[in-house]
Amino acid sequence: MRTVIRFPVPVSIYARASAVGGTESDGPLGALFDFHDETDRFGADTWEQSEESLSRTVLNLALARAGESQDAIDLLFAGDLQNQCVASSGGCAAAGIPYCGLYGACSTSGEGLLLASLALSASPALSRAAVVTTSHNAAAERQFRLPLEYGGQRSPTAQWTATAGGAFLLCHASEPFSPPSAPRITACLPGAALDSGVTDGANMGAAMAPAAADTILRYFSLSGESPSDFDRIVTGDLGAEGSALLLELLRENGLDLQGRHRDCGVLLFDPLKTDVHAGGSGCGCSASVLASLFLPALERGELNRILFLATGALMSPSCLLQGESIRGIAPLVVLESGKTGGEK
Amino acid sequence: MRTVIRFPVPVSIYARASAVGGTESDGPLGALFDFHDETDRFGADTWEQSEESLSRTVLNLALARAGESQDAIDLLFAGDLQNQCVASSGGCAAAGIPYCGLYGACSTSGEGLLLASLALSASPALSRAAVVTTSHNAAAERQFRLPLEYGGQRSPTAQWTATAGGAFLLCHASEPFSPPSAPRITACLPGAALDSGVTDGANMGAAMAPAAADTILRYFSLSGESPSDFDRIVTGDLGAEGSALLLELLRENGLDLQGRHRDCGVLLFDPLKTDVHAGGSGCGCSASVLASLFLPALERGELNRILFLATGALMSPSCLLQGESIRGIAPLVVLESGKTGGEK
Repeated sequence: MRTVIRFPVPVSIYARASAVGGTESDGPLGALFDFHDETDRFGADTWEQSEESLSRTVLNLALARAGESQDAIDLLFAGDLQNQCVASSGGCAAAGIPYCGLYGACSTSGEGLLLASLALSASPALSRAAVVTTSHNAAAERQFRLPLEYGGQRSPTAQWTATAGGAFLLCHASEPFSPPSAPRITACLPGAALDSGVTDGANMGAAMAPAAADTILRYFSLSGESPSDFDRIVTGDLGAEGSALLLELLRENGLDLQGRHRDCGVLLFDPLKTDVHAGGSGCGCSASVLASLFLPALERGELNRILFLATGALMSPSCLLQGESIRGIAPLVVLESGKTGGEK
Repeated sequence: MRTVIRFPVPVSIYARASAVGGTESDGPLGALFDFHDETDRFGADTWEQSEESLSRTVLNLALARAGESQDAIDLLFAGDLQNQCVASSGGCAAAGIPYCGLYGACSTSGEGLLLASLALSASPALSRAAVVTTSHNAAAERQFRLPLEYGGQRSPTAQWTATAGGAFLLCHASEPFSPPSAPRITACLPGAALDSGVTDGANMGAAMAPAAADTILRYFSLSGESPSDFDRIVTGDLGAEGSALLLELLRENGLDLQGRHRDCGVLLFDPLKTDVHAGGSGCGCSASVLASLFLPALERGELNRILFLATGALMSPSCLLQGESIRGIAPLVVLESGKTGGEK
């Protein structure tokens, strides 16, 4: 990739929704989410099916906000952390919407926004796209680590998979149904899978931070821009550990984010209230915080321009048991306020 | 989706490669593959890592055919059947190429060709894209069903996950480095996840056939074309069971494929020589047969125009144990010969 991908006609996020579980609802952003279920069950019997229900719920909430039905969506991009991404294929995709399944670990929200923007820019046959990503603490913990009932001791660098989901409806900014205040995706830069040798599945922040640093450094190098061109530089779920490492890696490369960095995994929980160790994680972490905190701030014009990097740790329990290291990845999108035209 | 997505500037598949294991190499297409390893190990110690190696190998073979290095690729789309798609992220994606991870089960080759075509059509910043998909019999069997050492009895409708991979390098047909004979993607139609109530993980053909029928019927309805506009209508891995069901479902809807249907899962093995029951399957099945049989025939002008539908069964062992049914999906691309300009 020799240049940043810029969209001559920006892509609007014309509707968005978030839904979370009980712990997330008790956190500092609790009042901002569109829906929460204290029981984390979302009306289903198993944790896996609860996440399917969460996926369906959050898409329907976004559609309701836009006053549209599922039939309006030309192409759905969705993914989650469950093996074979069944929360997505059995949840929102089962609505019969044309569907592309993604796996970018916790970076899936960013990957989805990037691919949906490319798809809409490619053909007039595509008018509306949806992006949905979810994660569920109980489903993820028993799949990747230990069932919650086991009561395993967690290490200080471990992160807490968020029970959360986000849905985004996208169209060309020129579409008459797109509200003028809708935030816009004006550019993007795909991430590369980077292996920094981290083999500790309880320290995903360390595995993802080098990938986030790589994408940020490539972006500023290719674009000629600097951190002062942005109000916020937002990462998905580096957590406290990974965020500190990111800033250190960037400083080593001569880049200072000047207090502009925020991490969705750090924002989602109050460490004094809920002991989530290094912070939140999961496909739904960045998606729910983007949908509930950053997009509304762009809609209101309180923020003008942000860099959003979802961050993913590409690994399976099998490959960790076989001694392989965790690859990090961090796709990037540039989000601008529709209200202010993204002016600096 | 109200129309077929057509590309005003077609996308060329300017290089491709296939690699397979021992059983696949002994089959009727054995002489056509670019590389095979009789041991199925591809130089690695575990089956999971063998598939990573296969993924890396098949991408490098395609790059070698084009005389290019990994740096030339602007965006890689890859996926496989392993949990969290680690064969792709640890295999070809670990080369540091900007990467989008896909999960479409055995339909990933079609999903990748579709998304790579959209991405290339979206922005001049993207010049070359790669699509790589793999599957490995031993890695897949122990993950989805039983380890091979168990010697479990297989049912007649069961399919044999192919140890195989395919890689495709794509660019705009107008690029000077694209050979005139390179096959072209001229149109595509995403698949929808369809749940037909099949809960038998040993009968994936039955779960996928309705999705393939749905996409084929939508394509002909939206395009106004008919089967006689194509030399071949190729499905990914319906196998013998799913292929018979597909033709029956289409006939019920008044569509006769007039002997033009071929299925990669049926073509890959000789049932009299290797007892694979209902045929081959896996992400690498359709990818390797497309790369070794159908694309070369298009390159030589022996075929002018084919409909290619990769077929996927979206399910996890956990969701089957919880009584859920398998969703089928079948994304479609239209492939035309560069030699004849796709004339009928």
